[in-house]
Amino acid sequence: MQRVWSVDLPNHIGRKVVIAGWLLRLRRLSQVSFVILRDGRGLVQGVLDDPVLIEQVAALHAESVLRLEGEAVSTPQAPRGVEVRVDKIDIISEATEPPPFELHRPEIAAQLPTFLDHAAVGLRHLRHRAMFRLAAASVEGFRRALAAEHFVEIFTPKLVATATEGGANVFAVDYFGRPAYLAQSPQLYKQMMVGVFERVFEVGPVFRAEPHDTPRHLNQYASLDVEMGFVEDHTTVMALLERTIAGMLSHLQHMQQNELDLPGCDLPLLPARMPTVDFVEAQRLIQTATGEDVLGEPDLAPSHERWLGEWAMREHGSEFLFVTGYPLAKRPFYTHPDPSRPGQSNSFDLLFRGLELVTGGQRLHTYADYLAALAERGQDPAPLAGYLEAFKHGMPPHGGFAMGLERWVARLIGMANVRETTLFPRDMQRLTP
Amino acid sequence: MQRVWSVDLPNHIGRKVVIAGWLLRLRRLSQVSFVILRDGRGLVQGVLDDPVLIEQVAALHAESVLRLEGEAVSTPQAPRGVEVRVDKIDIISEATEPPPFELHRPEIAAQLPTFLDHAAVGLRHLRHRAMFRLAAASVEGFRRALAAEHFVEIFTPKLVATATEGGANVFAVDYFGRPAYLAQSPQLYKQMMVGVFERVFEVGPVFRAEPHDTPRHLNQYASLDVEMGFVEDHTTVMALLERTIAGMLSHLQHMQQNELDLPGCDLPLLPARMPTVDFVEAQRLIQTATGEDVLGEPDLAPSHERWLGEWAMREHGSEFLFVTGYPLAKRPFYTHPDPSRPGQSNSFDLLFRGLELVTGGQRLHTYADYLAALAERGQDPAPLAGYLEAFKHGMPPHGGFAMGLERWVARLIGMANVRETTLFPRDMQRLTP
Repeated sequence: MQRVWSVDLPNHIGRKVVIAGWLLRLRRLSQVSFVILRDGRGLVQGVLDDPVLIEQVAALHAESVLRLEGEAVSTPQAPRGVEVRVDKIDIISEATEPPPFELHRPEIAAQLPTFLDHAAVGLRHLRHRAMFRLAAASVEGFRRALAAEHFVEIFTPKLVATATEGGANVFAVDYFGRPAYLAQSPQLYKQMMVGVFERVFEVGPVFRAEPHDTPRHLNQYASLDVEMGFVEDHTTVMALLERTIAGMLSHLQHMQQNELDLPGCDLPLLPARMPTVDFVEAQRLIQTATGEDVLGEPDLAPSHERWLGEWAMREHGSEFLFVTGYPLAKRPFYTHPDPSRPGQSNSFDLLFRGLELVTGGQRLHTYADYLAALAERGQDPAPLAGYLEAFKHGMPPHGGFAMGLERWVARLIGMANVRETTLFPRDMQRLTP
Repeated sequence: MQRVWSVDLPNHIGRKVVIAGWLLRLRRLSQVSFVILRDGRGLVQGVLDDPVLIEQVAALHAESVLRLEGEAVSTPQAPRGVEVRVDKIDIISEATEPPPFELHRPEIAAQLPTFLDHAAVGLRHLRHRAMFRLAAASVEGFRRALAAEHFVEIFTPKLVATATEGGANVFAVDYFGRPAYLAQSPQLYKQMMVGVFERVFEVGPVFRAEPHDTPRHLNQYASLDVEMGFVEDHTTVMALLERTIAGMLSHLQHMQQNELDLPGCDLPLLPARMPTVDFVEAQRLIQTATGEDVLGEPDLAPSHERWLGEWAMREHGSEFLFVTGYPLAKRPFYTHPDPSRPGQSNSFDLLFRGLELVTGGQRLHTYADYLAALAERGQDPAPLAGYLEAFKHGMPPHGGFAMGLERWVARLIGMANVRETTLFPRDMQRLTP
């Protein structure tokens, strides 16, 4: 007999079925036992009234893997209105000890480090696995939105000879006795690929050796990267980003109605256009409101991003806010300056619910501009020769953005710490599991 | 006026259009010049008969980026039966020198190392970019086939504390002063995730510090990884792999008819079932045919895989051949033995056109079996504690496979060297561009 998924049981009422999954919970009443089984897609309740069957499962630890045979019957109070009257049980794989925490509770009663130590079990909790379904569905929505606009998916090297984004936060690798680094981003490659396909995207790991222990930083994260040729300036990229997020949200809505069970997931409403504030204007607003002397600072602090998130909600009814015109000095060498304002750049961050979610902008596109920008920063162009060659041979004005998947999920689901929205996160202390 | 893609021009005949792209080639006749422009999706021919316009482009190097305005007119001999009578040219970005090789020739006249040194330009060649469209479409077909069977996409750590596949071919990373390694595969993570979703897949980079300079090996490649719970044995996984490849090919066929231009791409015909040969039987066949003494060898050499590929074609009319029952000693510690044949394993390789394309099999699923397998190999279980925990808490019989994207594309397109089917390949000598 073919196994039936928990979520498909309503189509099998009145029929004999086989179900299989993990023992989430066993409830023993005087005459009957209820087995709550978790399979890859949902929960199902099995009812045992034969004393032999009741005895067969009585001593099992939670998370043992079972196969149940029986009749699917309509039961309004059971999940999805159906339960299985069990007449045969196979114990496929018996758990050797109880789980480190109870998985049937609405929340896992463990501190984050304990949870992460036992992630192989903790991720089985419905709320946690829902997060990673949400992540997968978000990526699928991202890809669909871009494919509809003829973006081509690429897979680029993660072992590189030079730091892409500058700074000291690169991991060193021993590459057959030569020094190499883990790519901080696919930036240089996606730009080169604009010369090939005009429009490209990549979903892949990026590596940052940030020596920071914060709820926002990880040493590896999944970056959703986009690059597009023939842009007017950074505003073309911002409009693309708006369409991409709209596509992601619409895919999530579709999934939520059909497949996804996302407790606690709060999808934002998209404004007709996401509001924009200039960097310097944002600093003025913050200074006026808080009295803090922030004018002249080269970047926004997390507390300022939070303040701006509240401001955008209050003033524009938007959970998203573009901040544009960041000082050129704080952006990487490939950043295009604002032609009308020396020292400012054609770049943006997108804040979502008070946290930087996306960074993007227009890039330089002439070879001469690259040489000048590198010289100004005292950076040697030689190690970048293979990348700079693209700009000798005709590159259109172009730009792009990068979104952190874990931050996106954390904001949607209301998680304070991105470690909870990362499968097996990596931080300064943590390399396992 | 909105820009029109080259491939959409047939829908604009008789109308004024804007096209933009890279100057692939300029052909000057006595009264008229032809501009062949390459945009992100195809080619378009522009016709110039105004001497001022002809003069404007006369000295441009190939690969300069142009914007052309004019009328789209029906011209049977032009690409897609349409060309543009140009009346305005904007030079968006002028190439500063000629390309390192002529991109308009059917083949690039350069040795592979030279091509790879100039990949930023060489990948713009139509044949090369078609390969990477094929790669992207293959991955999309892979994901669609799996999503239809409720597999969930995952993103797992690439920085790990222990070698996943054993052996010495791991890259060492300095992780905040601690030793770490680049993941040789997502194997341990996809197995743990079977406990969460039952069915998972990942498309991501894997890293192998192979000190081999062969046409089949890369130090980073894109691995298409799958893992599935509740299998009967490795044959369940083989059947899934057949359905997955069928889905990939059907997506490529669909793309080829609609969007993809794949010169030289030769899609295989799928047999009703892919033929299977047992490892020892394969060795007997090879020994009988070639006289080589291969019985007792623990693995197949590349020449033997080629021989088997020809044999499968001859005997079964199939370009695919499963080899099953590899000696347990040569497979990783998580491999499930063949219960009926001591020393053999429930594993398989899939050969495609005489090359190993996929490795897979059933895995161990009880905690006791893992401890025994590690002890037998003299491997300390302690560094694997976070992984092994999954097996204490109920894991069903499961298995999976991994396919190398670059090998798949190389076989489809008839490329001998996987470096040509990799964007910016990494080998012992090459870390750039």
